[in-house]
Amino acid sequence: MLPALTMGDPAGIGPELTAAAWTAQATPFVWLGDPALLRDRVPVRVVADAREALAAFATALPVLPLTLGAAVLPGQPDPANGAAVIESIALATKLALSGAVSGVVTNPISKHVLRQAGFPYPGHTEFLAALCDRPGEEVMMLASPRLRVVPVTVHVSLRQALATLDTARIVAVGRITAAALRRDFGIAAPRLAVAGLNPHAGENGLMGDEEGAIIVPAIEALRADGIDAFGPLPPDTMFTEAARARYDTALCMYHDQALIPLKTLDMASGVNATLGLPIVRTSPDHGTAFDIAGKGLADVSSLLAALRLAGEMGVHRRNFMQGEAS
Amino acid sequence: MLPALTMGDPAGIGPELTAAAWTAQATPFVWLGDPALLRDRVPVRVVADAREALAAFATALPVLPLTLGAAVLPGQPDPANGAAVIESIALATKLALSGAVSGVVTNPISKHVLRQAGFPYPGHTEFLAALCDRPGEEVMMLASPRLRVVPVTVHVSLRQALATLDTARIVAVGRITAAALRRDFGIAAPRLAVAGLNPHAGENGLMGDEEGAIIVPAIEALRADGIDAFGPLPPDTMFTEAARARYDTALCMYHDQALIPLKTLDMASGVNATLGLPIVRTSPDHGTAFDIAGKGLADVSSLLAALRLAGEMGVHRRNFMQGEAS
Repeated sequence: MLPALTMGDPAGIGPELTAAAWTAQATPFVWLGDPALLRDRVPVRVVADAREALAAFATALPVLPLTLGAAVLPGQPDPANGAAVIESIALATKLALSGAVSGVVTNPISKHVLRQAGFPYPGHTEFLAALCDRPGEEVMMLASPRLRVVPVTVHVSLRQALATLDTARIVAVGRITAAALRRDFGIAAPRLAVAGLNPHAGENGLMGDEEGAIIVPAIEALRADGIDAFGPLPPDTMFTEAARARYDTALCMYHDQALIPLKTLDMASGVNATLGLPIVRTSPDHGTAFDIAGKGLADVSSLLAALRLAGEMGVHRRNFMQGEAS
Repeated sequence: MLPALTMGDPAGIGPELTAAAWTAQATPFVWLGDPALLRDRVPVRVVADAREALAAFATALPVLPLTLGAAVLPGQPDPANGAAVIESIALATKLALSGAVSGVVTNPISKHVLRQAGFPYPGHTEFLAALCDRPGEEVMMLASPRLRVVPVTVHVSLRQALATLDTARIVAVGRITAAALRRDFGIAAPRLAVAGLNPHAGENGLMGDEEGAIIVPAIEALRADGIDAFGPLPPDTMFTEAARARYDTALCMYHDQALIPLKTLDMASGVNATLGLPIVRTSPDHGTAFDIAGKGLADVSSLLAALRLAGEMGVHRRNFMQGEAS
């Protein structure tokens, strides 16, 4: 089984990256989009079933066809194409839920453009959770060759992150993360390094009390579940090479505590993985990049890494399910 | 002229690092401490004047002698030695102010131990600012081979950092930083990258309004001063290699925004430099490490980097002063 790659915004860098990912011949996939977008770039094979894609992949890019509402000008997104962009995501998710594809890899979309097309979700992840009937259970992981991070609070202001951080949320995210590491990453006894919130993890209450009041109880609850969670660690020293060797994923308290070390270490090859859903889902860690779309400047590294990770997660999940069943 | 290296806590790793720094013969210095601490490690030359130190350095570690109050057991700090620890700092500062040494490099002290000895300051930096009659004007920079960062708020909880961050403080710290880069780092037209506070620098107010309300006005004020400050930049992407090439120092809004990328990139060779004082001052970016003191396990990299940076800052400052005078 192959992962399904969505179309993303057709006026962004998705189409050229998709063609480049096929040319790389690294990880087979089936693409869900309008074949006209790719025909002048690479050989294309329209398929009727995702199961035909693997045999085709060596000689042509396999496509489950969708039809766009309007002509595409790179860099000039058009809400008239929003319906097809949304359909690509919905179809990929349906195929993953039915087991026809091994997971979903999403090309970048524009929230602004989709909002004009009537899309009510803040982004991909919330839409996928709704399609999977698991609203609110999605957890964002960023993974690169040197580090995996999961932020407990994500796309909110730092002030809002402080206001909403609580023990229940850390425990919920920690449980989903540990379960995903076991099921989708092949790690039998995952080690979770839990970050402090304050400088030096508060230095015994000298600089903030959230470590003792919120984070330590969450670590205790996770440990009571049999999860190897430890901390709270001083945030500034927990991402060194020596420190990273001691854990499988860093559980971070806010967006930039997770994303600064990830992107500082591995800007081009970071992958976004959505944990907590019944399907495997990854995406490249960049946006539509309308400013460079169609110019051949976009870097395919992150999409290749997203395809590779989705493939690996699919294999681990199958092995895990077979282990559970046997 | 040489920098003066203080004794630090004699029961910490300072003495063995001092001996190792002399053995490396990389950057000459004069040490202010009890010669008995070093005599079993390296050849020692007691000098009466810091100006005699350079000639001695090749064959022996030059020492301006101080006398400890009690015997030293590695790993077991004794408040009875606090007075000599404090005297070492005070004497080094006096020598730097008088021009007898080129700057001050401080070995680590223990705030807890010094507090028991009656020391009223939270740390080195505040004591040095008081000795220099510039209380509150000190600015902390962390410098490594790949990155320089200056946090606008430092050793306070994240909640307190949010509560105290304001335009005036960003402007004051930015001015001191730009002046120090010109005077002590030989950078004629320093470029300051100013971080946002929130994820994606707030994404036009979607995730926090501090960028528009506090940070943009500070950047405008700095630019009106002729300082090449720019931003606010999304915090997660501003520390990649490509981004770092575009600035000389990153002005960060809180401790871990500055320290996470610095330590993730260069754990062992980070140096703390105090800007805004009439003297050059650096220190290694680690503590007394009582747990490993006397065991020969301590890494001298950061102290060597601190000595080298103090030497370089001293040279730049002399050149700058001569340029101003001519």
